[in-house]
Amino acid sequence: MAEPFHCDFSGRMFLGQIGNQMLNAADFHSTDRGFGMKYLMTINRSWVLSRLAIEMEEMPTQYERYNIETWVESAMKFFTSRNFCVSGSDGRIYGYGRSIWAMIDTETRQPTDIYAIDNGAIDQWIVADKPCPIEKGGRVKMGDNAKLVRTLDVGYNDIDINGHVNSVKYIEHTLDLWGVDWYRGHHLKRFEIAYVAETHPSDRLSLYREQTAGNECFVRLVKTDADSGKEAEVCRCKLVFS
Amino acid sequence: MAEPFHCDFSGRMFLGQIGNQMLNAADFHSTDRGFGMKYLMTINRSWVLSRLAIEMEEMPTQYERYNIETWVESAMKFFTSRNFCVSGSDGRIYGYGRSIWAMIDTETRQPTDIYAIDNGAIDQWIVADKPCPIEKGGRVKMGDNAKLVRTLDVGYNDIDINGHVNSVKYIEHTLDLWGVDWYRGHHLKRFEIAYVAETHPSDRLSLYREQTAGNECFVRLVKTDADSGKEAEVCRCKLVFS
Repeated sequence: MAEPFHCDFSGRMFLGQIGNQMLNAADFHSTDRGFGMKYLMTINRSWVLSRLAIEMEEMPTQYERYNIETWVESAMKFFTSRNFCVSGSDGRIYGYGRSIWAMIDTETRQPTDIYAIDNGAIDQWIVADKPCPIEKGGRVKMGDNAKLVRTLDVGYNDIDINGHVNSVKYIEHTLDLWGVDWYRGHHLKRFEIAYVAETHPSDRLSLYREQTAGNECFVRLVKTDADSGKEAEVCRCKLVFS
Repeated sequence: MAEPFHCDFSGRMFLGQIGNQMLNAADFHSTDRGFGMKYLMTINRSWVLSRLAIEMEEMPTQYERYNIETWVESAMKFFTSRNFCVSGSDGRIYGYGRSIWAMIDTETRQPTDIYAIDNGAIDQWIVADKPCPIEKGGRVKMGDNAKLVRTLDVGYNDIDINGHVNSVKYIEHTLDLWGVDWYRGHHLKRFEIAYVAETHPSDRLSLYREQTAGNECFVRLVKTDADSGKEAEVCRCKLVFS
């Protein structure tokens, strides 16, 4: 159900909340099939979200019941692609999501072979012919014209059990770059994020924005290490408004 | 269920998420009894949360199932007090909550008589003898020694369908004043918040903190109007760490 506090000023669900529920669906789906985080941790493996694209025609509104369906579209040695469909209880389609996940070795933090798990069992779960009629996400190419628009200290509420900023918080910080007045006049049609590195509790985040012609925007998030002052890109977002 | 992204670095639920679920429980409970927000809106009435106190011995951890029970302890002309109990699926008590609600006229924004609704029907729902073994919240008295520790612009994700900052976001912004390192060494035993005024999208929030002897802290949130520059207190929090 679209809970009241998960909805924005217009009574429509926040995109970050949709993203959160997609990640939950991915977690439950993979757990049910023996590929869940809990099991992977026992063999020093973990899923890492590499890219997420969400395209919504419409958002569930306050108190509405909705479903999130998820399936694995394809798998390669180091990556798997997982799709999502968000629908209403009346069958209406709200939108779709596409995600790319890597499997890493939690000790070396390097990508590892997904097919090494349970003799390539992931092949049993691939549904290649189910349509997901939104564009695949790309690497989110940005020019060098992005302007620094905000800096913020990572907060206690940003950090999840992995000890770094959770994937959804980047989406929320990015969407907070526009005010309620902007959202009154613009529908966020597509949101795409490519994750590059992890942000830790003592880091500072800088957000750089590039507003191109038309309704496309790009946002780059850069972390600054508190001790060394070293900067590193943590993710890039592409937003399409209509 | 304690969803992964609703849990902090230690795998325990964020207090803000417990607060959010308490407010959901209050909403469903009052709706089931004909006192819900949806019905009240049709007669130009609304519940307004005036105070909330949460005391947790322990927090549900990632993937744990928990229950929130709520009941109306008492009602007066302008206020009602509603309690909460958070328990695990094994019956273990995690903690309790106490809240005070006013009913306002949505046109005049003034308090109105709760007993005028359905001939004082609220009396049917009062459970006076159920224990809620935590202290009642007070007005949260603060001295004048609080120091300005942070200012922030209200963001799109802070605003709910009422057009102002949602009650839970104040809790999150307050808890973000302490870093992960602090929470590693301190358990937040009790959190108390008294709501004074509403914060709007273009306002700026200033957080003033007063750390007293022992493990008590006070935080005052003040809004600054973007146009007039006028300041007004919006809420006060009292935190007890152990």
